[in-house]
Amino acid sequence: MEKKVNISAFSNNNMVAEENRKFFYENGIFATNIIGSPGCGKTSILEYTAGHFDEKFGVIVGDVKTALDSNRIIKAGHKYAYPIETGGGCHISPNMISEKIKEINKNIDYLFIENVGNLVCPSTFDLGEKFKIAVLSIPEGDEKVRKYPALFLNAQVVIINKVDLLEYMDYDIECVKEDCKIHNPKVKIFETSIKTGEGFENFFNYMRTQRKYF
Amino acid sequence: MEKKVNISAFSNNNMVAEENRKFFYENGIFATNIIGSPGCGKTSILEYTAGHFDEKFGVIVGDVKTALDSNRIIKAGHKYAYPIETGGGCHISPNMISEKIKEINKNIDYLFIENVGNLVCPSTFDLGEKFKIAVLSIPEGDEKVRKYPALFLNAQVVIINKVDLLEYMDYDIECVKEDCKIHNPKVKIFETSIKTGEGFENFFNYMRTQRKYF
Repeated sequence: MEKKVNISAFSNNNMVAEENRKFFYENGIFATNIIGSPGCGKTSILEYTAGHFDEKFGVIVGDVKTALDSNRIIKAGHKYAYPIETGGGCHISPNMISEKIKEINKNIDYLFIENVGNLVCPSTFDLGEKFKIAVLSIPEGDEKVRKYPALFLNAQVVIINKVDLLEYMDYDIECVKEDCKIHNPKVKIFETSIKTGEGFENFFNYMRTQRKYF
Repeated sequence: MEKKVNISAFSNNNMVAEENRKFFYENGIFATNIIGSPGCGKTSILEYTAGHFDEKFGVIVGDVKTALDSNRIIKAGHKYAYPIETGGGCHISPNMISEKIKEINKNIDYLFIENVGNLVCPSTFDLGEKFKIAVLSIPEGDEKVRKYPALFLNAQVVIINKVDLLEYMDYDIECVKEDCKIHNPKVKIFETSIKTGEGFENFFNYMRTQRKYF
């Protein structure tokens, strides 16, 4: 009986994810699902994006508690930021997205979904996004890809953030990139820093190209 | 039906946790459950502890994949480190501990259980430990207590790690300590750095005192 319950919950999730995907496609919204540890810089990346990515985009920001991150993005001058408070939940579910997209502005061309800070649970949930973006950061240490493989099997893009801290820390970035490629040989990797702006122009151009073939 | 399955799973977990607690008590093992984000320094803290905590203790190290962390602790000169690979699971369950304690050395006085790197899911699982230790680190940012409240409601001890990085980062440590106290007014907070050794002697003495009244 337990197995049946699980299977039914999973197929329901997948069905809702497909409906979300259809909504995004029909409205020309290129949606991505951003996943990383607490504090790896997901919100900072979106704050920076709010100030520098010259396209019409929206942000859905998931948090266990508080709308702090969504408020940060609005404060950074961005109009279309929508919070999801999971109320203790460890990931955003397709149903939460399905509810939230009823209120988003349909004229946006891109949607960034910032998932709950968690390297494990959000990795296996399809929300209807075009692809997943995994965010790593230098202070976390360079073994995270090996220790949390599910995300890196499922992510088309990896952002290695806070590279300005490389000089202070013992972090083998080449090894991290190799580990990413073992899990997904076609992975696209960007090395970024909010402080210097490094890597963002490449990332934005990649997003534009990807949307073209959407 | 779904509800019944959940209730039954939870009460079974609690039952196993109580059995684990009984085992620890009968064998004079003071067990704690260490929880924090990926990369906050849980394993480094235990490596440092292996070299400086002059007591008989064991370590159970949970990881989604690999025994990397357990090997690090053994390499640091520690004899009693036991890995648990959760195989995709986002937390250690009481059952995993129940299985693992069959093979641990019963002559230890302390047991540190290093949970999977995750600020959300492990917070609400009782493994039979005496108390939970939450680990924060400076590079994660100073809003984590507000964003992930469940852990800080449940933790008797908070370690704020990597304080040597305070001078490079904008982190309001007094505010973090206040946030911790809002969730648990009796919380005991330690500020630590592996690089300087700061805070560890206080932490070790606290553990010794706590075990005395165990």
